[in-house]
This record gives sequence, C-alpha cells and structure tokens, in this order.
Amino acid sequence: MRPTLPSSHDKVLFTPGPLTTSLAVKQAMLHDAGSWHWEFNDLVKSIRDRILALAHLSTTSGWECILLQGSGSFGVEAVLASIIPPNGKVLVLANGAYGERAIMMLQHHRTPHTVLRTPENTPPSPADLDRTLAADPAITHVVAIHCETTTGVLNSIETLGPVVRGHQRVFIVDAMSSFGALPIDFEASAIDYLVSSANKCIEGVPGFSFVIGRRAHLESTAGWARSLCLDLLGQLKGFDKNDQFRYTPPTHAILAFDQALKELELEGGPTGRANRYRRNHEVLLAGMRRIGFRSYLPPEVQSCIITSFLFPQDPRFTFDAFYRRLSDKGHIIYPGKISQADTFRIGSIGRIFEADVRSLLSAVAETVSEMGLQFLPPQN
Amino acid sequence: MRPTLPSSHDKVLFTPGPLTTSLAVKQAMLHDAGSWHWEFNDLVKSIRDRILALAHLSTTSGWECILLQGSGSFGVEAVLASIIPPNGKVLVLANGAYGERAIMMLQHHRTPHTVLRTPENTPPSPADLDRTLAADPAITHVVAIHCETTTGVLNSIETLGPVVRGHQRVFIVDAMSSFGALPIDFEASAIDYLVSSANKCIEGVPGFSFVIGRRAHLESTAGWARSLCLDLLGQLKGFDKNDQFRYTPPTHAILAFDQALKELELEGGPTGRANRYRRNHEVLLAGMRRIGFRSYLPPEVQSCIITSFLFPQDPRFTFDAFYRRLSDKGHIIYPGKISQADTFRIGSIGRIFEADVRSLLSAVAETVSEMGLQFLPPQN
Repeated sequence: MRPTLPSSHDKVLFTPGPLTTSLAVKQAMLHDAGSWHWEFNDLVKSIRDRILALAHLSTTSGWECILLQGSGSFGVEAVLASIIPPNGKVLVLANGAYGERAIMMLQHHRTPHTVLRTPENTPPSPADLDRTLAADPAITHVVAIHCETTTGVLNSIETLGPVVRGHQRVFIVDAMSSFGALPIDFEASAIDYLVSSANKCIEGVPGFSFVIGRRAHLESTAGWARSLCLDLLGQLKGFDKNDQFRYTPPTHAILAFDQALKELELEGGPTGRANRYRRNHEVLLAGMRRIGFRSYLPPEVQSCIITSFLFPQDPRFTFDAFYRRLSDKGHIIYPGKISQADTFRIGSIGRIFEADVRSLLSAVAETVSEMGLQFLPPQN
Repeated sequence: MRPTLPSSHDKVLFTPGPLTTSLAVKQAMLHDAGSWHWEFNDLVKSIRDRILALAHLSTTSGWECILLQGSGSFGVEAVLASIIPPNGKVLVLANGAYGERAIMMLQHHRTPHTVLRTPENTPPSPADLDRTLAADPAITHVVAIHCETTTGVLNSIETLGPVVRGHQRVFIVDAMSSFGALPIDFEASAIDYLVSSANKCIEGVPGFSFVIGRRAHLESTAGWARSLCLDLLGQLKGFDKNDQFRYTPPTHAILAFDQALKELELEGGPTGRANRYRRNHEVLLAGMRRIGFRSYLPPEVQSCIITSFLFPQDPRFTFDAFYRRLSDKGHIIYPGKISQADTFRIGSIGRIFEADVRSLLSAVAETVSEMGLQFLPPQN
C-alpha cells in the first residue's frame, strides 16, 4: 500500500532520529510565534496535556508533563539533576550507550551511584535487580532504558518496574525512542518518571524533550536541583505561573509538535503507529536477510524501532563506502555504536513506510553488488 | 523605503525574541537533515566558523565557537558550569534579570560568588569594578551582561573589560541580544567568553545558543564541568571528533540559522543590521513620545535593541487590555520585567522594518484613543 500521509523529498532517514518527518509537520514551522503570547502558551498547555493523554494519564490524576529545551539527553539529565536528594544513590541498569550516558551524568553531578551492567544484547534480569536492591538499601532511585537505541534491544520495564516498586525505590525510565509507539503502562511498569523527546516516535522535529512525573513527588524535590536550566521543578513552576517556558522555548519545534500529535492521532495513536513501525521492521529484517545480512540481536529482545546488522565478513566491506553509496541513492542509514561487534544500524521509525523500506532494500542489494560483497552462508 | 527582504505574515513580534524571522529562514526548515550525515555536519562546521568571522575571530587565531542545544540561558549556564575551577569565585555585574539569572545559576552549582549590583537604569561603573576586584583577590571570573534586555540598558563592556584584564581575571560576556548587530571588539573589551543565541540579532529561530572562547583556555578546564549536557569542553571535543553535536542537534534550527547568516551578510553584516535596528528604534521612540509615552532609560544608556516605556499614569490603563488590543491589530509587544517601575517593552530587532514600526505606532495611537487614555504633560 502506498503511504497516504505526506512524505518528504529529502534523502530518507533510516536513523534513530532526528527522523524524516511529514511535510505538514515541517510546514507548521513557517510561522513565528511569540513566546509570551497567550495563543502560543495555550498551545504549550495543550501539548503537555496531550502527551499525558498518550500515556493514559492526566493532571487530575496527579501527573504532569514538563517540556524542556534541548535534546532528549537534556531531559534525562534534568531528572537526574533535579530529583535525587543529597543523600540519594542511583542504580543504573546499563546495556548500551544510553545507560552509560546516565552514569556519566551522575559522575558530573558527583551523585553516588552504582551500575548493574549486562552485555549489549542482554536485558537486565528482574532477579538480578531484586538481588541488587535487596543488598544495597542505600539505593534510592533506579534508571532503566526502555529501548536501548545502541542496539535496538528492548528492556522489559514491565518486569523491572514491579521489582523497583517492591523495594520502594523510585523508577526512572528513559523511553526516548519508544514513547508514542510501543505500549507503556505506567501503573503496571511502576514508572515514577519517564523521559522522551519530540523527534522520536511522535515524529516532531528536534528541539525539546519531555518528562512525565507525579506533581506531588516533584514538589518533594524542592532545593535539590544541581542546575538552573535543568531544574525540573523550576520548569514546572514556570508552567504553573503562566503556562510559559521559563526561558526561550523552541517555538517552531513546538508548532511542529502540535501538528505531529495531530498526525499521530490520525494514524490511530500509538497502536496504529506501532503497527507501521513493526511492518517496516519486518520488511527490513526479511529483506536484509534475503540479501545476506545477519542482525545482531536475538529476535526475542529485538525492538521494531531500530535494528543492528553485523558487517559482512568480507574485506571489501567498509562502512564508509557502504554508507556513501546508499546516501547517493537517497537513503541515510546509521553507524553502529556497539563495543562488542562491528555493526551498522537501520531505523524503522519516522515518516517512512513499507515502500521506503523496499526502496532502501533495493539500494542495499545494488550496493552489495557494486561492492562485490560476498556473504558467508547462514549459520542457522 | 519598503523592505526588500521577505517579511512574515504572522502577527509582528516587537519582542526580545523569539523574533519575527524572514520567510526564507523558516522555509529552510522544510527539510529533514541527518545529524550523523556529512552534509549536515559540514554545515555545522561552516556555521561555527562564520559566527567566529562575525566576531573577527578564527580558529587559526585560537578561538572556537561551540553550539549548544537549548535557549540562550543554557549557553550562559554551560559557561558557568564548565569553566569555573573548584576554588573559583565569580563576580556578577547585575542590573537586571539576566544578571540575577547568572547568580541563580551559581547558587544552583554551589559556586562561590559575589555581586556588584546597580539599579536597573544604571550600568556598573568601571571604577566600582576596579575597587571590587582589588578588594577581593579570590574573584577569578567576572560576568557582565552587554545589553540587559530587562530594560534595554547597554552596559559598556569596552570600559569594563580592560579593568577585568588589568586584574588578570576571566571576563565572561552575555551578549545574547547584542551579538550580530552591536559592534563587539573582543580585544578592546578583553572578552574571554561570549554567549549569544540563534534567535536574536542573527534572526534565526530558537533552538541553540553559542559560546565563543579560546581553545587553550577551554582545554585548561578539563574535569571541572558540573553537568554532562552543559559541558562546554565536552561539546567542543565532540565537534573536534567528527564535527557533530554530542547529542541530538536541533537540525531544523541549524538549517534556518545557515539561511539567517546568509541574510545577515546580504544586509551588510552587523553594521547594516545595526543601522536598521537603530532606525527602527529612533522611529519608535519619536513616535511613542509623540503619542505621549515616556521611555524608562536615560538616552545615554539606551540600546537600540529594546525599549522600556512607562505605563501612563491613567487608571484606565491596564497592560493586559493594551496588549490584547495591539495583538488584535497584529502587533505583539512585550511585558515589563523591571522591579522599580511599571513598564512595558517594545523590541526593535528581528525581521522588522521602519514600516512595521510605523504600523505599530498607528495601532498604539488608535488603542490609546480607544481606551481614552490621558497622558501627563512631558516633564522635560
């Protein structure tokens, strides 16, 4: 089926974001909005409410959505810089670059922390988490990455969250590349704080992240913030006061996000969007295998968001040449980020459809032929 | 003369930013760029170099321009969070909200600091600065705000900087709303670090700030950063490695900024732009006086960037009603931010011309008439 939503004519981005967005999302930026003006700030309020609604939450049930300028990492750092008490200690569940980045943030803040590290293709186990929390009562907060974009591995927050709740610790979920597509049940996963970003599954443009948390808990963190710009409660108080960002908002990215939310609804919400992403992923995986590539992750932990493929074991393969040839054909893929294996990544998210994936597959097959690449016979 | 550069059809923003931008600047955002892709990162490199060139600096003479996600305040906080050594002490020259904001940042970082505060209509005096530095050898860094947008007051960095240099302290200048239009001589003003933002006088859209500093000095700050996302040296090392932002860049805001820099050149660079802003300001000031309004600042310290006007002493005046009536006529002004006087503000910057100012003046006159406002006779 041909896509019915508008698509872009730029090179198509098969990346973890910034993504290919719809033309209408970009056209929403053809306006200059006043950041103090009520029309803009009504929109900011509406966006905060609509993000909560995507999570089946609302301000009346005690939840708040806080928009923050900067990339998704700024949102993660804002949580870690704001809600950890001076005597707090954070456990990070790390199996990729984004878990490691959270650790680097805590190092910069001089915040006590510990790490439960698993290999990049292995989600943390709830039993190990349970043992770690039981053994260290000083741990106050636990950080998990939902979809680790490093590999595309899906960490099971549904099984980890209840363990965190059982030990009465605070559960922080980095859902950067999953929120808006993959189902997330705040209650079942015992999520206290969730962070995501404008330019991932909601298909807006980059410029801000957002944090979902309980107002009562946020208000209990007064005085703890280690940064002014990244002060989550300060940002919430700004919105409370006059629905405004404390400091200059990315007005155009906000206008684009409003349109992106409308288009998400048009597609049937997160369920409809996940269906498209899953289809993109399935077509991609089947096609790449047909060409001879092997994916890095075992299927049971592979998300439909982004897929890591192993380099072919042929000395004629270099990622740079492969990437450039695909770029020349109009397709942008993504380098690998894994320490344990040589991989490249192909994303399934953004305003791309099965037809775009098939076009990419055709370009990959042609590039393999141009480069004269040979694949080892499949081992399974 | 009618404007020859394209103008927007939204309500015109007479604010300190986000500003009215050209249609071509906004149209540059109708593209999705890959943040890992060489075409985009060549543009990032070019933008960093062109910002330095605006300041008559270059990497070959030892300077670097570091782009940072977020608003201008994120850039200021990045400097304060990155370059102050653990035993450092910061003197803030405060005569408005932006000086006070720098103080709040230092409070959040638990960084020792002291304040030389002057009234909101009074720039800090070089003699007072000299005495303060002589009396407190613990002070290592001095922060000044070039154009304090709170009032529009212009603080003379040309006379303050040499005093800072004379005492061998580091001089940090917040040039948020002046860089790109008002002349800034790094050597004469002894500037070590300067911070500005995409959506001010260069007339891009909001999404990132930029910091200019010396590479050698930045490299001497290793290990001091109190934040990961706001780590200035970390960000520079990211650019060094592959010309990329460490974390997701605001790709669309970067594309818009490229176009904004082209249009700045088209207008004759900062000199040409300052001429337009000065003309906007003069027409505004003369017209508002003719209607009966009085400006807050004495002319000798008034910048051409933004002007504070005193509320008329007529009980029928409320800012909200005045603002809404002007908005209905297509003009967005800005509230006051001064503690000592009731004022509103009107900006002269952004893609606005004398003709736009005259249109605003006509709307102000009509609104004054609609509201039946009476003015006291001028006192001078």
